[in-house]
Amino acid sequence: MKIVVDAMGGDFAPQNVVAGAVDAVKQYKVCVTLVGIKERIEEELKKYQFPKDLIEIVHAPEVVAMDDAATVVIRQKKQSSISIGMALLKKEGYDAFVSAGNTGACVAASTFILGMIKGVDRPGIGCIFPSLKKFTFVIDVGANTAAKPEHILQYAKMAKVYAQSVLNRPNPTIGLLNIGEEECKGTGLEQEAHKLLEEKEPCFVGNLEANEVFAGKTDCIVCDGYVGNITLKVAEGMMESVGKLLKREIMKNPIAILGAVLLKSSLSDAKKSVDYSEYGGAPLLGVDGLVLISHGRSSPKAIKNAIRAAKEQVEHNVLKKIKEEMATNG
Amino acid sequence: MKIVVDAMGGDFAPQNVVAGAVDAVKQYKVCVTLVGIKERIEEELKKYQFPKDLIEIVHAPEVVAMDDAATVVIRQKKQSSISIGMALLKKEGYDAFVSAGNTGACVAASTFILGMIKGVDRPGIGCIFPSLKKFTFVIDVGANTAAKPEHILQYAKMAKVYAQSVLNRPNPTIGLLNIGEEECKGTGLEQEAHKLLEEKEPCFVGNLEANEVFAGKTDCIVCDGYVGNITLKVAEGMMESVGKLLKREIMKNPIAILGAVLLKSSLSDAKKSVDYSEYGGAPLLGVDGLVLISHGRSSPKAIKNAIRAAKEQVEHNVLKKIKEEMATNG
Repeated sequence: MKIVVDAMGGDFAPQNVVAGAVDAVKQYKVCVTLVGIKERIEEELKKYQFPKDLIEIVHAPEVVAMDDAATVVIRQKKQSSISIGMALLKKEGYDAFVSAGNTGACVAASTFILGMIKGVDRPGIGCIFPSLKKFTFVIDVGANTAAKPEHILQYAKMAKVYAQSVLNRPNPTIGLLNIGEEECKGTGLEQEAHKLLEEKEPCFVGNLEANEVFAGKTDCIVCDGYVGNITLKVAEGMMESVGKLLKREIMKNPIAILGAVLLKSSLSDAKKSVDYSEYGGAPLLGVDGLVLISHGRSSPKAIKNAIRAAKEQVEHNVLKKIKEEMATNG
Repeated sequence: MKIVVDAMGGDFAPQNVVAGAVDAVKQYKVCVTLVGIKERIEEELKKYQFPKDLIEIVHAPEVVAMDDAATVVIRQKKQSSISIGMALLKKEGYDAFVSAGNTGACVAASTFILGMIKGVDRPGIGCIFPSLKKFTFVIDVGANTAAKPEHILQYAKMAKVYAQSVLNRPNPTIGLLNIGEEECKGTGLEQEAHKLLEEKEPCFVGNLEANEVFAGKTDCIVCDGYVGNITLKVAEGMMESVGKLLKREIMKNPIAILGAVLLKSSLSDAKKSVDYSEYGGAPLLGVDGLVLISHGRSSPKAIKNAIRAAKEQVEHNVLKKIKEEMATNG
């Protein structure tokens, strides 16, 4: 198995990416192909001991910046790590692509270079949200900010396969993110999507209000990419702010500091269960290849876990299963 | 000053509403007019000692259920506490209306009975979000789920006046909630709203990503009601789940329990700064009257604080100031 990794993607590339890749090859015995500026990757690799046969480098002279327009990767930077990595994935012998780089560029490049699966019109980014009952798979969190009802239905079908094969939920339930439980709620998009889901997807159980996302009421949640992205970012920002606020309050009071020390292991267990880096990358579903997008601020651990997630998806044959589902349900 | 309060609104009405109203008249010396089923209100009032001249009852035989359609209040339940309360507000001598009842019905009744302010097309619900730097005023969190760019501009102008006169921010900054900082981000709505805001509202400082909502980067945030509602509910649900998760982790470990005891005052200070009930009701801006909507699960304290917030808005002359702003900026 060979996982292609965008060595230049993310706010701390190539350092964090290379460090995570080294950890991954040691821990999971997968082959990793690092794509990016060769000299810079080699320089980073020098810092570590690792089985040399498990890491190869493919040179890509260009770098897509985090704030480049999504289409730059197709129109201008054809020699970027994203473009070259994606082209590698299309070849025989490469199984998945992982990037912590520019999300829009990854979506554009994978749509353009890999193409769409038959039966899917638009790709969707899936994301695992922590919840009180294990976790919930939410799609789309930002690939498609102008979803149509049929796209939402396609997300539901792909989410179902993902939950079954990767998350080990044989009979997953699917909810539609909305501002109320009643089917008349939401904008025209949600109302039509609700109708379509009810008609065509047996796993659909109805609308789910946003305050229930973290309660784990359903295994999967489908939504438009704009709303999904807002949901993801609100959760992220809130977690960060609550952490800072708590720290600020605690530091005011010596007894509280002692309390925090005693609480430390519980706090870190709780933090772990809401920490994105524990879950690895977010799968981009709908394109004809296994693509995982990691957080731009990915730590080495997050990269390692994204590679682990990619490995699991290859082993579970997710792509083939999604293709089968979409072919029978076209 | 007379504040009209919907005694039948909310999941715990009339108990919590009456209890909160009693506390409010004692603490703030305002007159409260409780609207609802007379016998039930009297029964609750019997439980308390309070200055009798500060509470009056106006009978309303019908009750709008929390899950009634929004328009029920206009078409069928014309004798409900919401309809009758809103009609009272239109009369001389009544200054504000507070309800923890059906939000959609409150919006519909206030639009229909009070009418819109000149220069405003759609009402918006404003909500005070806790943030690391005091708090942020977000509008709209759910009145108008099909906002147009000009509605967003109107929200910005009203938010500015609200921040200046109620929140004591003489030069408030306004951000547009979006999925990226660049002006090209978001759907057509956000792109056009961005252009309009830049052109017509000097307090506008640009897009704000959802993960920055709680960082307090701007004094006000404007958005479509659908997205605003999702944002509010995600934050609410997350707070609740994080609390439960933390409790669960702590209970596993006796040392952590001791830690939590020592931390208690810091935790409750932190909780207080993110607790909606501390901030009182959410103002419904754009209608020709002061209307505050409280959370359906409002505690007596939340009701009391909503009445306090109503009192402050009357004292600050918010309605008049918003009318002036909208008239000059039509």
